[in-house]
This record gives sequence, structure tokens and C-alpha cells, in this order.
Amino acid sequence: MPPAPPSPPSGNPVITAVDTYDIRFPTSRRLAGSDAMNPDPDYSAAYLVLRTDAGDGLEGHGFAFTIGRGNDVQVAAIEALRPHVVGRSVEEVCGDPGTLSRVLVGDSQLRWLGPEKGVMHMAIGAVVNAVWDLAAKRAGEPLWRLLAHADPEWLVSQVDFRYLTDALTPEEALELLRRGKDGADTREAALRERGYPAYTTSPGWLGYSDEKLTRLAEQAVADGFSQIKLKVGADLDEDVRRLRLARQAVGPDVRIAVDANQRWGVAEAITWTRALADSDPYWIEEPTSPDDILGHAAVRRGVAPVKVATGEHVHNRVVFKQLLQAGAVDVVQIDAARVGGVNENLAILLLAAKFGVPVCPHAGGVGLCELVQHLSMFDYVALSGTTRNRVIEYVDHLHEHFVTPVLVRGGHYTAPTAPGFSAQLRAEAIAEHSYPDGTFWAAERAARAEEAA
Amino acid sequence: MPPAPPSPPSGNPVITAVDTYDIRFPTSRRLAGSDAMNPDPDYSAAYLVLRTDAGDGLEGHGFAFTIGRGNDVQVAAIEALRPHVVGRSVEEVCGDPGTLSRVLVGDSQLRWLGPEKGVMHMAIGAVVNAVWDLAAKRAGEPLWRLLAHADPEWLVSQVDFRYLTDALTPEEALELLRRGKDGADTREAALRERGYPAYTTSPGWLGYSDEKLTRLAEQAVADGFSQIKLKVGADLDEDVRRLRLARQAVGPDVRIAVDANQRWGVAEAITWTRALADSDPYWIEEPTSPDDILGHAAVRRGVAPVKVATGEHVHNRVVFKQLLQAGAVDVVQIDAARVGGVNENLAILLLAAKFGVPVCPHAGGVGLCELVQHLSMFDYVALSGTTRNRVIEYVDHLHEHFVTPVLVRGGHYTAPTAPGFSAQLRAEAIAEHSYPDGTFWAAERAARAEEAA
Repeated sequence: MPPAPPSPPSGNPVITAVDTYDIRFPTSRRLAGSDAMNPDPDYSAAYLVLRTDAGDGLEGHGFAFTIGRGNDVQVAAIEALRPHVVGRSVEEVCGDPGTLSRVLVGDSQLRWLGPEKGVMHMAIGAVVNAVWDLAAKRAGEPLWRLLAHADPEWLVSQVDFRYLTDALTPEEALELLRRGKDGADTREAALRERGYPAYTTSPGWLGYSDEKLTRLAEQAVADGFSQIKLKVGADLDEDVRRLRLARQAVGPDVRIAVDANQRWGVAEAITWTRALADSDPYWIEEPTSPDDILGHAAVRRGVAPVKVATGEHVHNRVVFKQLLQAGAVDVVQIDAARVGGVNENLAILLLAAKFGVPVCPHAGGVGLCELVQHLSMFDYVALSGTTRNRVIEYVDHLHEHFVTPVLVRGGHYTAPTAPGFSAQLRAEAIAEHSYPDGTFWAAERAARAEEAA
Repeated sequence: MPPAPPSPPSGNPVITAVDTYDIRFPTSRRLAGSDAMNPDPDYSAAYLVLRTDAGDGLEGHGFAFTIGRGNDVQVAAIEALRPHVVGRSVEEVCGDPGTLSRVLVGDSQLRWLGPEKGVMHMAIGAVVNAVWDLAAKRAGEPLWRLLAHADPEWLVSQVDFRYLTDALTPEEALELLRRGKDGADTREAALRERGYPAYTTSPGWLGYSDEKLTRLAEQAVADGFSQIKLKVGADLDEDVRRLRLARQAVGPDVRIAVDANQRWGVAEAITWTRALADSDPYWIEEPTSPDDILGHAAVRRGVAPVKVATGEHVHNRVVFKQLLQAGAVDVVQIDAARVGGVNENLAILLLAAKFGVPVCPHAGGVGLCELVQHLSMFDYVALSGTTRNRVIEYVDHLHEHFVTPVLVRGGHYTAPTAPGFSAQLRAEAIAEHSYPDGTFWAAERAARAEEAA
């Protein structure tokens, strides 16, 4: 069991509300975030707050990340889950998020809209993550530490093994988690001292000039990052040139990952990646459709020794399972807000540990760095037990809108100390960026109306 | 090119509206439709009507099928596509639905919500299918015939080959379609005379008594069906017993498919299916997660000679491609309203033809029989050229709500003759079953309020 929560003032407090917010940031106006498939993202959050009558002032915050249009659809999906959540006992839900997670995934009518994929599954992830935020706040612990100190049996009970047992049984998971306890205290101390290694995508967006790419790449090295990432896939000659520039800027010892954002078919992925080989790219990320397990396996065979990474759009544990079974990836890129929340990410971390494949989370957007750091830190302290070849993506976007933003220093994420999942937006951010009636968007509309007049 | 549409009265008519409707039928009250994963479906349609200013009275109708809760989320997703549709030239869209299909799939912000899966992709399918309904009405042809008489080059232009070319190139697709022209006239005449073989799921729902199962199975044989289907997966002893009853009722020569609706993991699927073997099941359908390509391949190896069928929840052409590449299925079960509409189903039919695997569509629900018959009939006349080992699912539900309902006689679907995609609900059905304010649902609410008072 996780550390016991403080006694609530009322006898059996319940969740009284699931309040939702359509939050959008106008990031498309400055080209940060542009890649070969996503030229103009407006980073957005379909955001929710769980409120209770516990009287302790604690709320659970969670969100699905989107890139603009459709954020309203994502909010509608979260609202469709509300009847499963409101009225539940806070203690029961926070003591066992896995049961609620199974209820949400198992709603037989909503399940038809997936199953376990796309809008409906991301909505489940948002709600489940909000529950973990509340549970960690009640426990007075940052989520990574709640997980790292939890009982292995209890962690196993939090995982849905349906469709997984041909690759990972509950018994194997328990063994991995028990083994993870060896030396956990030493690793926790090391984590608090050094943090968790990060890499940065900031230099590599497609819209940037050569001068900006070079300057940001040099800055990344100066800031202590040992890996950067470049977006590729729009124009081969340009990619060859930009990658050489980046290599010159960072020198031979800093890793450069490249990211095609699903742009290619299998043959093109192989040809294109090979054409970049003389600049020594470390991994090729999302070379093709995130659904194409066999395609990734073929690409991996075709581009070695360049590694293959994917995961930010892999929609559930069943696809991750197969990517590992098929030997299709060298790097598992979990995302905190794509799958069904912490519980499903536990399953994916366990699968990666079983297969011995490093996890390097996808982050960026809005709030993804804040969330996913907790999962990697738990993995280091109490599961995989190593940070070797493991880095969390870092993009310096929109952190200022969070109550407890990530802190990256010397190329490392600092271990969070505040209780919770670092998921909470500042009240001002919600008031300004609620769409379409927050103060930012209302002012935009007024300005456009004035222009038109 | 498809047959030229009649000249419109106005110069360049455009699509003026995408009107949406949340339509729900209270099917959960009579146990028809119950299976191991879906105990109480309320068959529903997130329904849309494309209206134009052509002045010819023609509209395009389309829908996503859901089973109740979340139908509102599905409607919201269709509405998110509206800006891509309203204002487009009717002639351009109907002459080339593939271009609009690519625009919808390619919206970089909405794409994040999939990509190409779940709620957002089903919404795209609904809109694309509505365009084909309009195109076929304008051409004065049932859709199957419009497709069967279309030029092979034009059909190839309607397919998005992204992520497919490692399994099927445009050149191979063209060759398949050209070969499909040989003997097409003869097959069209045969189709008009005999119809297309059907199988029926009506006897096999889990909620039915033994007496009802036996009676409906005997009736199915009397009605001319050469295959029936039973739902399994809730209780093994019960399944063994029910399957024996059904085998006794239909005799040795009628095929009995069994359908687990994703209930099992890989090992359980193999054990359970083997335990049913003495009643000679023809195929096991959805033995495990629709995402588990490698799992289906393992099940297929483990249960032969029982065949493996899946597809109703397979979310796009990339997963179908892999099921075929991996030798994971004996039967491809397309669904007209799960993937991105007619264009993506063309891709899937072409893949199945390339790999020589028979297509036996999923149908039932509301309107799925009406839609999918057109795809199988096109496939017979002008692509695969055969109905051998091919049957379309038939469930006798809710057809009365359609303007041109399917007509199944002697175990065969009769070839539709009315122009369009058979997608149009009767105005009364929309007025009664709109949720929550249609006359049926309003009366339900009033009755419940009275009970409570």
C-alpha cells in the first residue's frame, strides 16, 4: 500500500465534481513546435479538476494534451466519464486508482469508441492521472516517490494484465518490482542530488534558421545536455545540411536524435535515415505510422546501427507489447497523457523492463514534462534501477503556467518535492487561456473585430 | 471517372451545411445484441446530413455507429470537421472524394487526436461516407454499381497509399482492378439475380434461452442461410453446451462461426477455442484485442483448422495491412463505419485481394448492413471476382428505420437498386430517436418522472 493518507475531517468524503476546461495556448504564432507533420500546433489541454468534500483543500488535476482544434471534442470525452467518478469515495479511489481505471476502460458502451485508443482513451488517461495527482497530494508525496515507496504487490494490482500475459505475467511483474527495491534508497539519494538526465528538442524545430539552430545547439551543450533532437522529414537535402550544422555545433560526443513525426513509409524511412548516417544520428524517432509494428521492425533492421524510437502516439500497452515482442524498437517513448494514465504506463514500464529496452519519454507540449518526469524517476528508483541510455525529453515551453513547473538544471530534471503529479495549472493560466472566452482569446477576438471594422 | 453526374441547375453548387443528429435506439431492453463484452448496447448513430444549394433535392447522409453512451462525443467530432466541408464545390467533392478524405485525415491539429483511430477517425468515416452517398445519388446509381463501373485509374486515385506501399503499391492496385474488369458484366448479372451470400447472427446472442437459440438456428437454416454465428466467451461450459445445441439444430453442413468480442488473452483464446472444436466451429472471431496483430497470428497457429476472423474494431488500413503481412487472419471483417470511410475500405479490399484473403464484413448494429453490402458487391463484381467463402453478416435489427432498407431473401442480400449508399434514415426515425429530445426519449423521461412522483 502507499503511505496512509492523512485522516479526512469528514467521515467518508466523496468526489463532488469533475470540472472541465478547454485550455489553448497560441503557440502556432512563433514556430516553436513545428515539425514535418504538425506545422502550426496550438498547444492545448483538455483539463479537469476533481473536487471533493474532504475539506482539506486538495484537488486532483489532470489533462489530455492536444495541439488545438478538437480540444473541445477531448473535453466532451472527459465529460462523458463524469458519471463514473462523481460520488465515489475519495479514500477508495485514491487508495486503489486501478479499480476506477478498469471501470472507465470497461464501460461497455464507451469502449466501442476505441477500444482503448484515441479521444476516449486519452480522456480516461486524463481522469486517471487526476486521481493520482489527488492521491499523491493526500499522501503528501510527489507522485514519483509515492510509486517508488509503494508495495510491489499493490503496484501489480494497479496494472491491467488483459492482453499482456503472453509477454508479461503478474508474477514476472512482481519479481521485477521486488528486485527494484534493492538499492532503491541509494538511487533515491542519487536522484535527489543529481536529478534525471534530460535531452532538449529546443534547437531542432523545422521553422528555425541556420543561425538559430546553431546558436541553440551550442547553448544546449553549454547548458549541460548530452543529447539534442532535430526534426526531419520535410526535405532530404535540407535535413542532411541541418544535421551537419548541428553536428558541427555540438561536436562528436553529444548525441543527436532525429524525429520524422510519422512522415514516411517503410522504404522511405530506411533510405532517408541512411542518407543522414554520416552525421551519426543516435535514433530515428517515429519513422512511420505509430500503428505499424512490423514496419518499425523492418526499419530497425534497415537503419542499424541508428536506433529506432517510438511511442508518443502509441495508443496503448498492447501496441507497446508488440513493438517489444517484434524487436521493433531500441527506445520506448512513453507519453504521460496518451495512454490510459499512470496505471497503463506502469504496465508499459514493466514491459520495457522485462524486455530490457530503455525508456526515454516523450515530453514538451504543455505539461507533458511536468507529468512524465515522475514516471521516469519511479522507474529509476524502483524498477529499471538505471538511467543508462535513458533521457527525458525537455522543451522549454509553457512551464510558467504551472504551479510547480519542472526545474531542469545542468541537463537534468530536478526531482520534484511538492506533493502531487505536478499537473496543476495556475489559476491565471486557466482564466487567460480558456477557449474561447478566457481573457487572452476574448482580447484576440476583439482585436480581429477591430481590424475587420 | 464515375458516370458523369446530371448537370446541376445552379452554376457551381456548394455544400451549405453539415447538420448533425444524436440518434439512439433503446435496444438494451430486449437483450438482442448482448455479447461477452457488450451486455447492454443501445444501438446509436452519430448522424449527419450534407446539404447543398444544387436545387436537385439531393443530400448526402452518413453516420458513425456507436452503442449508446458517447454518441454525443462522436457527434462533437463530426462537428469539428464541419469547417473543412461547408463551402466546398459539390461537383469537386463528389467527383473526387479522395481529396476531401486526405484533407480530413491530414488536418494536423485534429490528427493529434488519433492519428487515424478512434472517435476522430470514425467521424471522418461518417463524413466521407456521406459524400459517397451524395455522389452516388447524383450519379443515379447505387454505390456498389458506381464503384464497379468506375475507371480503375480513378479508383486508385481514391486510395491513400501512405504506410501501405511495403505491402501494396498503386501499380499493383491498378493491376488488380484492371483484372477485376474481366467478366464483371457476367458477375453483375449474377449478383442482380442471386444476390450476395449472407450469414446471420440472430440466433447467437448470449442473453437467449436454449429454446430461443434452437428455434432461431432452425429458422436460419429454413431461411436459406448457410452460416450462423454464436457469441461466446462468458462461460466455457455454457459455450460448449450452446454450440452443441446449435450444431444439433443446424446439422453438419451449415457453418457455425463463434465470436468472442475481444474477451481473451492469447493463451486463453487458444484453450477456449480448442475446447469448442468438437462442434466444428468455422471461425473464431475477435479472439483477443483488435490491436494485437502478433497475438492473432499466435492464436491462428494455435487453433487451426478453425479459422481466425477479425476487423470490426480494427481502426485503419495500417493494422489490416499487418494482419495480412503476419498471416494473422483467415477472414478480413471490414466495417463500413469504423475506418475512414469508403476510400479507406477500398484500400483494405485491395489489400485483402492482394493477399488472397476473403472479406466477410461485420454488420448489424444500426445501418451497418445497409452500408457494407455495397462494398462487398463492388468487391465481387469488380475486384475479387468471387463470393467463395465470402458472406456478409446479417442481423435483423432496425432496418425499418431506413428509407431503403436491406432486403435479405433466401440467405442472400439483394443488390440495391436505389441511388446512393442506403444510408438515409427516415425522417420519422430521426424525429423519434434523437437524443435526448426526440419524441421517444422525451416520453421515456416523462414516464420515469411520473414513476418517481
